[in-house]
Amino acid sequence: MRLLLLNPNTTAAVTDLLLAAARTVAAPGTELIPATAPRGVPYIATRAEAVLGGAVALEMLAEAEGLDGAIVAAFGDPGLGGARELFDFPVVGMAEAAMLTACMLGRRFSIVTFAQALEPWYAEAVEWNGLSGRCAAIRCLDGAFRDIAEVQEEKEALLVDLAARTVAEDRADVVILAGAPLAGLAARVADRVPVPLVDGVQAAVKQAEALVSLRSRKATAGSYRRPAPKPSLGLPPSLARRISHG
Amino acid sequence: MRLLLLNPNTTAAVTDLLLAAARTVAAPGTELIPATAPRGVPYIATRAEAVLGGAVALEMLAEAEGLDGAIVAAFGDPGLGGARELFDFPVVGMAEAAMLTACMLGRRFSIVTFAQALEPWYAEAVEWNGLSGRCAAIRCLDGAFRDIAEVQEEKEALLVDLAARTVAEDRADVVILAGAPLAGLAARVADRVPVPLVDGVQAAVKQAEALVSLRSRKATAGSYRRPAPKPSLGLPPSLARRISHG
Amino acid sequence: MRLLLLNPNTTAAVTDLLLAAARTVAAPGTELIPATAPRGVPYIATRAEAVLGGAVALEMLAEAEGLDGAIVAAFGDPGLGGARELFDFPVVGMAEAAMLTACMLGRRFSIVTFAQALEPWYAEAVEWNGLSGRCAAIRCLDGAFRDIAEVQEEKEALLVDLAARTVAEDRADVVILAGAPLAGLAARVADRVPVPLVDGVQAAVKQAEALVSLRSRKATAGSYRRPAPKPSLGLPPSLARRISHG
Amino acid sequence: MRLLLLNPNTTAAVTDLLLAAARTVAAPGTELIPATAPRGVPYIATRAEAVLGGAVALEMLAEAEGLDGAIVAAFGDPGLGGARELFDFPVVGMAEAAMLTACMLGRRFSIVTFAQALEPWYAEAVEWNGLSGRCAAIRCLDGAFRDIAEVQEEKEALLVDLAARTVAEDRADVVILAGAPLAGLAARVADRVPVPLVDGVQAAVKQAEALVSLRSRKATAGSYRRPAPKPSLGLPPSLARRISHG
Amino acid sequence: MRLLLLNPNTTAAVTDLLLAAARTVAAPGTELIPATAPRGVPYIATRAEAVLGGAVALEMLAEAEGLDGAIVAAFGDPGLGGARELFDFPVVGMAEAAMLTACMLGRRFSIVTFAQALEPWYAEAVEWNGLSGRCAAIRCLDGAFRDIAEVQEEKEALLVDLAARTVAEDRADVVILAGAPLAGLAARVADRVPVPLVDGVQAAVKQAEALVSLRSRKATAGSYRRPAPKPSLGLPPSLARRISHG
Amino acid sequence: MRLLLLNPNTTAAVTDLLLAAARTVAAPGTELIPATAPRGVPYIATRAEAVLGGAVALEMLAEAEGLDGAIVAAFGDPGLGGARELFDFPVVGMAEAAMLTACMLGRRFSIVTFAQALEPWYAEAVEWNGLSGRCAAIRCLDGAFRDIAEVQEEKEALLVDLAARTVAEDRADVVILAGAPLAGLAARVADRVPVPLVDGVQAAVKQAEALVSLRSRKATAGSYRRPAPKPSLGLPPSLARRISHG
Repeated sequence: MRLLLLNPNTTAAVTDLLLAAARTVAAPGTELIPATAPRGVPYIATRAEAVLGGAVALEMLAEAEGLDGAIVAAFGDPGLGGARELFDFPVVGMAEAAMLTACMLGRRFSIVTFAQALEPWYAEAVEWNGLSGRCAAIRCLDGAFRDIAEVQEEKEALLVDLAARTVAEDRADVVILAGAPLAGLAARVADRVPVPLVDGVQAAVKQAEALVSLRSRKATAGSYRRPAPKPSLGLPPSLARRISHG
Repeated sequence: MRLLLLNPNTTAAVTDLLLAAARTVAAPGTELIPATAPRGVPYIATRAEAVLGGAVALEMLAEAEGLDGAIVAAFGDPGLGGARELFDFPVVGMAEAAMLTACMLGRRFSIVTFAQALEPWYAEAVEWNGLSGRCAAIRCLDGAFRDIAEVQEEKEALLVDLAARTVAEDRADVVILAGAPLAGLAARVADRVPVPLVDGVQAAVKQAEALVSLRSRKATAGSYRRPAPKPSLGLPPSLARRISHG
Repeated sequence: MRLLLLNPNTTAAVTDLLLAAARTVAAPGTELIPATAPRGVPYIATRAEAVLGGAVALEMLAEAEGLDGAIVAAFGDPGLGGARELFDFPVVGMAEAAMLTACMLGRRFSIVTFAQALEPWYAEAVEWNGLSGRCAAIRCLDGAFRDIAEVQEEKEALLVDLAARTVAEDRADVVILAGAPLAGLAARVADRVPVPLVDGVQAAVKQAEALVSLRSRKATAGSYRRPAPKPSLGLPPSLARRISHG
Repeated sequence: MRLLLLNPNTTAAVTDLLLAAARTVAAPGTELIPATAPRGVPYIATRAEAVLGGAVALEMLAEAEGLDGAIVAAFGDPGLGGARELFDFPVVGMAEAAMLTACMLGRRFSIVTFAQALEPWYAEAVEWNGLSGRCAAIRCLDGAFRDIAEVQEEKEALLVDLAARTVAEDRADVVILAGAPLAGLAARVADRVPVPLVDGVQAAVKQAEALVSLRSRKATAGSYRRPAPKPSLGLPPSLARRISHG
Repeated sequence: MRLLLLNPNTTAAVTDLLLAAARTVAAPGTELIPATAPRGVPYIATRAEAVLGGAVALEMLAEAEGLDGAIVAAFGDPGLGGARELFDFPVVGMAEAAMLTACMLGRRFSIVTFAQALEPWYAEAVEWNGLSGRCAAIRCLDGAFRDIAEVQEEKEALLVDLAARTVAEDRADVVILAGAPLAGLAARVADRVPVPLVDGVQAAVKQAEALVSLRSRKATAGSYRRPAPKPSLGLPPSLARRISHG
Repeated sequence: MRLLLLNPNTTAAVTDLLLAAARTVAAPGTELIPATAPRGVPYIATRAEAVLGGAVALEMLAEAEGLDGAIVAAFGDPGLGGARELFDFPVVGMAEAAMLTACMLGRRFSIVTFAQALEPWYAEAVEWNGLSGRCAAIRCLDGAFRDIAEVQEEKEALLVDLAARTVAEDRADVVILAGAPLAGLAARVADRVPVPLVDGVQAAVKQAEALVSLRSRKATAGSYRRPAPKPSLGLPPSLARRISHG
């Protein structure tokens, strides 16, 4: 199956991290097609940036062809709801997949990440998924970092420590290492945290594979049915075509 | 005070409806500056369209100058959270303002609108505001309509009937007539529904005036502080400048 | 418009504080009519005192004449629900108005006040409004104070510090300085707390003005319709008349 | 043990109904002391009336002497929180006791009563107790009735029918026949409804007996500790004394 | 009345503790029939052990005869829902009874116990009862203990200290001393904690007495009706008989 | 990988249905090991039967050897929490897997099944998973059925109709066909319902494969760590060994 691995930020090195982590768990028949946002910010960290990233994500999905499924690979899932309306193949968000997977590994999960700026956006992702009751805490490092593509090495010890602390202090049963720049970190540090770790992009790959394998049909009713065709103004042609059903 | 009345869809006739309804309640010193989205769809009805509308709304806000406040005048409040981060003046959403105003007029409000397609987006707006416990129901007409700018006349009797039914069947104490194309309808039909009606844009004008009058400061901490400056790629210059704090 | 500024406690000096703070934000055409409870306690701090204050508030409202709206100016809103049933003009509670206003300034608000005794009553006000999901914390100073009418000066530094701490520790985006005796404090200390502050009575004035401007009708159905007329025994004449619809 | 059976409305015939129903389940050593409100309304049905009833209830409690416990015998529990603060013996509310008892008889309870006017007040009682998740529905008859003291006979068949319907349609496991005027009805119609019925005053008697038997101490900390002593103005002497700790 | 006091763990000394504490509050006419699990673990502390204890509890109930009611006397209430389906007399759980009783003594209760291992099971009991909103905290000692039947003496000072801390730090109004091995402790230490203490088995005795006195009927509809008769394989004869309605 | 497909009821024909449906979606390298409960009831439909099924499930898991993962294949997930504590490999419940999968296919899911008796148990499964906010409705057929192993053929048309109705009336975006006896039905009727259908056992196979692929570690902290070793009395040897860590 062909899965678009859509990075809605503009940093190709982060796409590379995502792809490397994704490949270690992908099934033999899974082809991962990486894509990096052509415009936007180097890493999405706020609601404002997520709004812009969501619009770019829809365009990137409209551009792609021959997909069996797609992964919106930014924790926070920009544009996910809209993508699920517009496209006929399954689309999975990295935050969503990580949280739902975590629910099978523990009663309550914590989300651990590398920057305070991400907290409000992640908090809204938890709420959007209706999983506040399963979330023990969102914990963020508070210092600056040098390079988004290397933040996981730079902050490794601090992140492991924060994960251990949320287990002890917030009673988390499982910890999600969140944010595309942390892709691949969980495997490296798993034996240093006393509960299961969830790597967002790896969870997303397995969930996307699961949905494709289950061959669920596209809804023609309910809130994710295809919207009625509509004219548009000034949108990229592929997206305009999809909105007008052309 | 100068308030941007930002219509994130592309239909100027809807902007006109919004402006007319807004003016009837605006305070003497309030100057309303109408703006219609330069790109997007004629009316926003789905999550996908809201994502696109949110991005356009941020651009429109970045273009405007000399504002004391702004109103995102689509029920569903596309881009509101992001706008609140990026800009230093108060920004109010039409759904948010309508619901919070309704909370002072009744224990539970219903949202009544003209098309089924709007329900999921509105439902997410209720949840995003944490007001599910105050929402009696979202009720939508189910037929087609001819012209978005005249849907309020075309459907007037049906909307009045639906409002009356949600009072009787869902125990609503107050009814929000939702959706930019219904701006101004509430005043016309108020005496035909036995509970208070809330007109979204009118509520938004009064709430924006209230916030400006209260002279609240821009946060420098918390989840609506200004994001750290950041480079960007391919964004409209005014928005890029704001993101890079230029 | 004529707004009753109803202080349900017996301390006229607190009414003066409320009036002074209210006037700085009231619109040009707003006439504020102060009233102090003729019986009860010097300041309401507990559920028991709120019950008594609620009954007095209803009597005071029944006594007043020619009103366009009213403000129940004790944080905790004693008697608010009952007032909304009995009277035909809008009635706004200070806690309600502060919290709803805060919702437009941040994702989560904290309530900061000067005495531990107030916490349970305020907590019930948050729940009654269905806003627990938006409330980061209720934080109270714990020492004694000398004079209720001067507690805001006496405790100013401690209150500023507590506001700053709830931002840092509870992730509040906005802080409500709660309690009638703190009226006017927010403006004085706004630049010493890194998030917007909400002054309860000022929020209530703007919300009452908004409701009056929106000219919402009195409900004849739903939970705030006028109760059916009923005889009564031993109540003050004006209130008895209102209950019997005379 | 001596239990005050406090009827916060002014209808002595309703007090008689309450007393008769209470006696059939009271333990041998329980002495029930009936009291009827000296002022207020013939039956409490709205938030406004409940505010007045709550104030009267506190006065009645302050007047009584030599009590081991008390029952606030109006469904809606006017003044309960305040009573629990001010007095050293256990005070139980009829709504509270009925709902908590119902929780041991079924997963979800319905509340059935004789007048639509009661619904908002009862709904707030459910919320105040934090039991919304256990409440299947509140169902009210909608016609007028002749005499509050005989409404249970007049409406018996309709109430039985409504109880049966809430079982079938709302999936209630247990039905509370709510409202002081229905005291004693449950026993008479129990075999005509296919789930357990709860009679409010009977549940309250057993819960009050339970609390007295368990000899729980009066809190000196937490939200039901005795409030700090305070002067007051214009209150009945016994209540003023209690508030000033005299 | 005859009440089975069912200890679903295998330690007879714990049954003795339960019985002693229960007798001090039982009404004169209450006969308490103690029973200790014939198989299982010495004390139930985890979800796995609770599953096994639940199955044993159903068998023990099926074996007993001539009962008017029963108490499942392990905090966590193993098998309670199933018992309520299968048997015609009232069955009360110790956790359920303690929490519902606590709700009449305070706004929020804390649960205090002697071992960390119990926390997840107790947390699920709170959720199962729909009382998360009333629960301030679950607090557990973290050291080892010597003898389950004497843990209350060994840890007395630590438990009192933990109770006091949850009042101060978690704002609990009432504290439940939870776990069968702590039966009887509350009475001994009540004057050393500033809020009411609830002893689980004592609360359960009073609640079981209340339910029996109220003579509620067995449901023939709703979720606690008797299940349809069904064959079974390999179950103890008395339980098999009950399942097949023989 | 070797996955135990554990049917906690005693009907081998249902195990066959489960296995057949599971195989059509299992990955090439997945070996499914079917097991039928050696004691219990022919199909689990109530809380009481689930308690018994949970105990048997733990025994069956303790008996199995060489597993990489396991599926508790009764909708309601008897014993799941306990299994997750006791065993070192991932264990997935059929209800849990179906609901979490459904969350990626729609905003709100409905659960549709063949017998009213199942509703309370399923409702508790939704709550236990903290997914009440995502559940539109639980809908059950109400007639009798002939043979549990053929109920899906017998009721096919009625189930399709009920699924369509919950989409239209409850606004479900996705429908779970719940209950082991319906395994395989979803694929057969997918094109007759306008939203995606989820087959419980198929979802569980994909989720179990996902967890095994992600190689999550066994927790040594948090609520799913292995319980401390403990003696036991009268349990099957393999389970006793596991509880005593032998």
